[in-house]
Amino acid sequence: MIILGIDPGTATTGFGLIKKTGKQNPEYEIVDFGVISTLKTDSDAKRLQILFSDLTALIKKYKPHKIGVEKLFFTSNQTTAMTVSQARGIVLLASQQAGLEISEFTPLQIKNTLCGYGRADKKQIQTVVQQTFKLKNVPKPDDAADALAIALCAAWRK
Amino acid sequence: MIILGIDPGTATTGFGLIKKTGKQNPEYEIVDFGVISTLKTDSDAKRLQILFSDLTALIKKYKPHKIGVEKLFFTSNQTTAMTVSQARGIVLLASQQAGLEISEFTPLQIKNTLCGYGRADKKQIQTVVQQTFKLKNVPKPDDAADALAIALCAAWRK
Repeated sequence: MIILGIDPGTATTGFGLIKKTGKQNPEYEIVDFGVISTLKTDSDAKRLQILFSDLTALIKKYKPHKIGVEKLFFTSNQTTAMTVSQARGIVLLASQQAGLEISEFTPLQIKNTLCGYGRADKKQIQTVVQQTFKLKNVPKPDDAADALAIALCAAWRK
Repeated sequence: MIILGIDPGTATTGFGLIKKTGKQNPEYEIVDFGVISTLKTDSDAKRLQILFSDLTALIKKYKPHKIGVEKLFFTSNQTTAMTVSQARGIVLLASQQAGLEISEFTPLQIKNTLCGYGRADKKQIQTVVQQTFKLKNVPKPDDAADALAIALCAAWRK
C-alpha cells in the first residue's frame, strides 16, 4: 500500500510517499519525497494552481491509497494561517477528486503517534523517520522530512 | 462585460453575477445570484469539492470576464478564518483555471468603494446594491447580497 504525506504551504509544500509491505510485521520504504515550490512573484491564485496541478500529477504517478495531511493548529501569525489554509484546501480538493482516503493530523497527533509523547521536538521526529526507513541521513529539506513523518503517522495511526 | 462576485465560506458561498453595459454612462444589471451550500455532515474535502464543481459550472455557464473575491481580514475566530481560507483557495483555483481576471478586496475596500467611507454598515452596503440595480427589495440571502456588492466593487474600483 502506498501512502502520501503532505505538509502544506504556499511557498513550499512537502510531500513524502511511502510503501507499506507485509501484514504481520509491516515494513516501510520510501517511494519518493520532495517539495512543490512556487514563486513569491506569482499571484496567490497562480501558486495554488501550480500546487494543484503538481499534486494531481504526483497522485496520478504513484497512485497512493491514502493521504495524511497536516492540520493547522492555532498559530499567532494569522496571515500565515490563512495562506497555509488556502493551500490545505487545494490539497484536500486534489485528494478528494482522486478518491483517496484522507486523514488529517494535528502536530500533536503526529508527535504522539511517532514518538509516543506530544512534546517531542523536530529532531526526535526526524530520528524516527530516519530509523524507520534505515537512512544514513535525515531527508532534506525539512518540509519533505515532515511530509514523510505525516505519511508514517497515517500508516501507524488507527 | 460580466463580472462575478464571490463571498467565500465553507457552509455557504454567496455568488453574484452582474452585467455592465455602456462605456460613457455604464449601467448595471443583475444576471444571477444565490448561494452554493454544502452539508455540515460532509467532510471538509467533500464540501470543497462541491464548491469547486458548482463554481466551475457557474463560470462555464455565464463566462464572466473578471471575478471579485472577498479577502479575509483579521478575525478573532481563527477556526473560522482557516475554514474560510480553505474555501477561498478553491475559489482562486477555479478562477485561475478559467483564466479570469482576479481582484481581491478587503471588507474595508468594499465599503470605501460602494459607500465612500470605510465604516459603512451592512445595511448601507445593501442600499447601494438595491439602488444600483433598481430593485424593490434587498436580494436574499445576505451572502448573495454581499456577493453582488463585491461584484460592484470589482466593476467600480480602478
